[in-house]
Amino acid sequence: MSEIDSIPVSGATALYAIVGDPVAQVRSPQVINALFAQAGIDALLVPLHVPRARFADTMRSLMSIENLQGIVLTVPFKVDAKALVDHMLPGARAAGAVNAMRRSKEGAWEGDMFDGAGLVRALQDHGHTPESKRVLLVGTGGAGRAIAIALAQHGVRELALSDIDHARAQEVAQAVRDIAPNCRCTIAPAAFDGHDIVINATPLGMRPDDPLPLDLAGMGASHVLFDIVPKPDITPLMREAQTRGIATIGGKRMIEGQARAITEFFGHRV
Amino acid sequence: MSEIDSIPVSGATALYAIVGDPVAQVRSPQVINALFAQAGIDALLVPLHVPRARFADTMRSLMSIENLQGIVLTVPFKVDAKALVDHMLPGARAAGAVNAMRRSKEGAWEGDMFDGAGLVRALQDHGHTPESKRVLLVGTGGAGRAIAIALAQHGVRELALSDIDHARAQEVAQAVRDIAPNCRCTIAPAAFDGHDIVINATPLGMRPDDPLPLDLAGMGASHVLFDIVPKPDITPLMREAQTRGIATIGGKRMIEGQARAITEFFGHRV
Repeated sequence: MSEIDSIPVSGATALYAIVGDPVAQVRSPQVINALFAQAGIDALLVPLHVPRARFADTMRSLMSIENLQGIVLTVPFKVDAKALVDHMLPGARAAGAVNAMRRSKEGAWEGDMFDGAGLVRALQDHGHTPESKRVLLVGTGGAGRAIAIALAQHGVRELALSDIDHARAQEVAQAVRDIAPNCRCTIAPAAFDGHDIVINATPLGMRPDDPLPLDLAGMGASHVLFDIVPKPDITPLMREAQTRGIATIGGKRMIEGQARAITEFFGHRV
Repeated sequence: MSEIDSIPVSGATALYAIVGDPVAQVRSPQVINALFAQAGIDALLVPLHVPRARFADTMRSLMSIENLQGIVLTVPFKVDAKALVDHMLPGARAAGAVNAMRRSKEGAWEGDMFDGAGLVRALQDHGHTPESKRVLLVGTGGAGRAIAIALAQHGVRELALSDIDHARAQEVAQAVRDIAPNCRCTIAPAAFDGHDIVINATPLGMRPDDPLPLDLAGMGASHVLFDIVPKPDITPLMREAQTRGIATIGGKRMIEGQARAITEFFGHRV
């Protein structure tokens, strides 16, 4: 049994879970466990497929397990999780959803939202701090809303929101204005108009025959395109941007940025 | 993020848990995960520290998690777990306790008891099949009772039970007679008397100043001593036996044997 010590889980391991319905598709266990392993931290994130009908009961049970120190929430539980935490941090309140919760030293559960933090972190990693920038964000669904909030929290000067659902875009604009009164937040068409950073937060690009989600005309080498679609690695929109000399960042970088942000929220330096 | 693929847990990993209060001391995650890893099985056992007051509720939640395929029970939950399974296998019924449960293909939960199976398997691995043997078993608490049942199920001819608590020994003897009418089960002093196999199932030997739990006088090279105390590797009783030329088997072998038996109960060939 010589390999026993190489298996990174023991009764003393700090345990985390990602809860979804389903979970077979989630990438967080691989990405976050790789961060734990690289940093030499005795911690493990496991996926739990919790049936929707049993969500609240099961969460209360999980929250009582003494060595379970944090929970990541994924589809369809990010909104329902709000009711379970004792305290919501500002990003979660503004996003209206929780995608990670942790047990505080006092035993209370705190919730926050990192869907947008991952994108901000990826921008920063690529040398594009959002502070004082003009940003066009196309798509204001769950992910787009969280990104809008995170960008506003990180000091973007102007945030233009575009969505075929105008009411939804207006609602997100209001949430942005509430959390960041100094950010000039407007509704705009899905087309470049002198922005520093352009973001696709729609699902367009996942399927090969999707139309391009936005018009890149006028963008060039001094601009950045972020496409949150994680697969394929290079979406048709990113390819189009690259032919114009535009810097591109893909959805995988957002997933990695989010994993690092959540791992730090859980109290680990990675 | 090149190490991602080396981290052995994903949304598709078959998940198992060991539930106890506390769990920091348990060895099953290391031993069973090593078996999974060696056999190339995409499965993981995680320790869950469930507070006693929340045991039943939490177990019902865990049993509803769709990718959690089996649960190992440890102190203090082996008896309480009986009430939670839909079906108890004969060893669990006779032992009056459950230490592993699995979800059947039909979705029902089946419980069994492997505390004794681990010892039987270790005996077999060392070439000492219990069948038709005369065995002295000293100590008839939880572990001793499970060992008595497993030995009876594996065809020992005579089983002498010794315990300072005579009523407890009598109770276990009755359970043995119920499950194995052909096994001659008696109450005996804690001393060798021509037995083929002598087993210490008391905790004596864990602390350096413990007295020896039984009298080895008369034992020799043709006999076997099994001491279930897992730490130290060589207990004072085993050392005494070795000076007499007696073959010895220690508690770690029982833990490993149990891990293999539970892993097979969970449906994996290891």
